[in-house]
Amino acid sequence: MPFAATVLTLMPEMFPGTLGVSLAGEALARQTWSLEVKDIRDHGRGKHRAVDDTPAGGGPGMVIRADVLAEAIDAVVKPSDPRPRFLLSPRGRVLDQAFARELAAGPGVVLVCGRFEGVDERVIEARGLTELSIGDYVLSGGEVAAQVVLDSVIRLLPGVMGGEGSDIEESHEDGLLEYPHFTRPRDFEGRSIPDVLTSGDHAKIARWRRAEAEALTKSRRPDLWARKTPGKG
Amino acid sequence: MPFAATVLTLMPEMFPGTLGVSLAGEALARQTWSLEVKDIRDHGRGKHRAVDDTPAGGGPGMVIRADVLAEAIDAVVKPSDPRPRFLLSPRGRVLDQAFARELAAGPGVVLVCGRFEGVDERVIEARGLTELSIGDYVLSGGEVAAQVVLDSVIRLLPGVMGGEGSDIEESHEDGLLEYPHFTRPRDFEGRSIPDVLTSGDHAKIARWRRAEAEALTKSRRPDLWARKTPGKG
Repeated sequence: MPFAATVLTLMPEMFPGTLGVSLAGEALARQTWSLEVKDIRDHGRGKHRAVDDTPAGGGPGMVIRADVLAEAIDAVVKPSDPRPRFLLSPRGRVLDQAFARELAAGPGVVLVCGRFEGVDERVIEARGLTELSIGDYVLSGGEVAAQVVLDSVIRLLPGVMGGEGSDIEESHEDGLLEYPHFTRPRDFEGRSIPDVLTSGDHAKIARWRRAEAEALTKSRRPDLWARKTPGKG
Repeated sequence: MPFAATVLTLMPEMFPGTLGVSLAGEALARQTWSLEVKDIRDHGRGKHRAVDDTPAGGGPGMVIRADVLAEAIDAVVKPSDPRPRFLLSPRGRVLDQAFARELAAGPGVVLVCGRFEGVDERVIEARGLTELSIGDYVLSGGEVAAQVVLDSVIRLLPGVMGGEGSDIEESHEDGLLEYPHFTRPRDFEGRSIPDVLTSGDHAKIARWRRAEAEALTKSRRPDLWARKTPGKG
């Protein structure tokens, strides 16, 4: 069974978008994963297929109606569907590499993309949506966030990555930022490749890379370093 | 002067992508911002326009060459260009709402999208690229991350947001997650809108929303709450 992604959106034309080319697009063509895109507006109300209304209690923007979104979800997700259901939202649990791995090991995901001011809270509860964030910033809608989630997961599916091992020596895979890379030419504008990397001494290269990764993590992301080395200060 | 975005990529067909429709797309059409997309492969080497080579010191994947990327940057960014230059990378400073606001107040951005295993470290130094991350996960390339950065910034440009004020009562704007939203219908599957929101008492509504936002932030994101209330534990 391929990894099954269902996306509910008011902007179906945004998909597959970045997921239709390169690694993810090739994997889609090979049916390593599947993509179903559901237009929430199919369930809009009235002649103009309205999906939103003004916020109860006043305030700026418009809120997506609970009944409209619930119908759209029910049209594509059966109650027995084992896939986790997420609403992309800056209020949600923040995606990280460990969670991407967890999702990649499962049957797929249902991703609901918010727009406007947000979504009526009652449909989040009634349909068991878990809010999922890609970071502490606000986007104009959940669509590009859904593509980020899917991209991070799809590259981890079996057979998708080209190079064996290129998924384990990455930033965030072992709690460290990745060491610096170099390639030909040996001289670039007077800057040369560090000698150790051309020494052929693989143990020494591994030690150097580990030390670089640790130094980079300590200086750029003391928060990650502290999580990796609890109690060491 | 519109906000000027220049994107360097090996996947130019991914742009404008999600940025070509909706809010960002309309703002692009109105020339509130401009988008220049530069194909790094224009500066590739040899018949096959190779842009990458194997990592010095061994290891999986391929590394983008310093000389190729430097030439591509030099072709579209003059030394006097005042815009900040970023390489999208999971090793970078992590985007947040305050940084999106800072970028939106500036002249634009240059965004270099990495692919494969990474980019030769020397071009990062030689061309003064700052690494910028959208979160602690790995993507198949920087393109969707560049769209996230631009989306977060473009919605903050003058005239882009529809509703006045809808950019200040958002998650992460004041260090809090946003309070829950409700709209019609009043009854949804037996769930009703909280009475306070239909009371017409605006001061009471404001207090309720503030309390909900604080409670949500405390329970879901104790890290944000601790930053907001230093010393209070």
